[in-house]
Amino acid sequence: MTAPEQTNPDRAAPPSDRTRARRVPDRGHYDRATIDAIIDAAIVGHVGWVLDGQPFVTPTSVWRQGDRLYWHGSRASRMLRQTDGQLVCVTITHLDGLVLARSGFNHSVNYRSVMALGTAHLVTDDAEADAALETFIEHLYPGRWAELRPITAKERKATSVMWMDLSEASAKIRADLNHDDSGDETWPTWAGVIPMRLVGGPAEADPFVVPGTPVPTARLPG
Amino acid sequence: MTAPEQTNPDRAAPPSDRTRARRVPDRGHYDRATIDAIIDAAIVGHVGWVLDGQPFVTPTSVWRQGDRLYWHGSRASRMLRQTDGQLVCVTITHLDGLVLARSGFNHSVNYRSVMALGTAHLVTDDAEADAALETFIEHLYPGRWAELRPITAKERKATSVMWMDLSEASAKIRADLNHDDSGDETWPTWAGVIPMRLVGGPAEADPFVVPGTPVPTARLPG
Repeated sequence: MTAPEQTNPDRAAPPSDRTRARRVPDRGHYDRATIDAIIDAAIVGHVGWVLDGQPFVTPTSVWRQGDRLYWHGSRASRMLRQTDGQLVCVTITHLDGLVLARSGFNHSVNYRSVMALGTAHLVTDDAEADAALETFIEHLYPGRWAELRPITAKERKATSVMWMDLSEASAKIRADLNHDDSGDETWPTWAGVIPMRLVGGPAEADPFVVPGTPVPTARLPG
Repeated sequence: MTAPEQTNPDRAAPPSDRTRARRVPDRGHYDRATIDAIIDAAIVGHVGWVLDGQPFVTPTSVWRQGDRLYWHGSRASRMLRQTDGQLVCVTITHLDGLVLARSGFNHSVNYRSVMALGTAHLVTDDAEADAALETFIEHLYPGRWAELRPITAKERKATSVMWMDLSEASAKIRADLNHDDSGDETWPTWAGVIPMRLVGGPAEADPFVVPGTPVPTARLPG
């Protein structure tokens, strides 16, 4: 519970004190390659924002382009309208496994998560918004943008795209076995790891799809 | 984008104005049976909290007992220490499907989510904390609590349990097909739904498990 502070020579330093993994420092990762991989494997993130002192956490699709994290929604969305120029925290979490030990205390979960702190901004440049939306579709479904009915001016106007800088982002990873206390090993119960993952089921075409049309290869989370 | 406000005669009313689904009112559900089912299917939730005006969103295991939502962690956890008596938002999200339309604009996702607003409290009664931790383990792994090496006084002291009331919780659900604009149906691309779900892989026993010991039946998310 009180692991000593460690330095992680193979990893970048935390971008700020408030992003430093404190309690289990060995789980903290601050290099952009690790952070980017966790973001890029995600479909959904959770955007934290504050209104009149009350935090709200809104689930929404997120994606990355370079040093920016993006999300989007209806121009009428309360969350998007409220957060332009405001402090936010976007957290992305992959649950990778259930860790079962021989004591309740030593149970855990395997996961990869990223927490990004910063200021949310509305994308005000139309070309940047268009490019961001294309990146979003292409990231989830490579090759799909060119196959779609092009976006109309009305649709474009109804869509808000938001971004934040990834300069104050950090990752946490637990990818490990169960760790029982010395002496617990002979306790007569099962212990180990049950891996978890998000998977896609069989695609369900709508009635208008021409038979033989290939199903898009969705870049499912890893 | 501008669906008229609707009443949902089959559903309870929103517990507050700020929990009312505004933009797509038909996705809002306020009855406790719906809310409880979404919570009970979750392993991880996202706790939103505020420190010096900065929101933080922390992923953590959550569970429910009656009208209370619980989470826990190390007594040394910054999030737990900071949130006792503070306003929080806990959001639980299940991604149920990718919805592919023939225009980028009409793409969507199917999901079930709950957002609970309220005040976080540290459980100060030891018996309540013990019962909550047992409920947590039993909820994830029915029958397991009795098989575990009992919790020690030291472990108990190192663990903080938090709760919030579910009186201001609301759910949102999209469980639907793709909806293309009239005229888009003949666009020559695939459209439909790719269901998504979180699944458990083959359990990986540690070397001390006696052969033949049954693997706990984890209550995997639905």
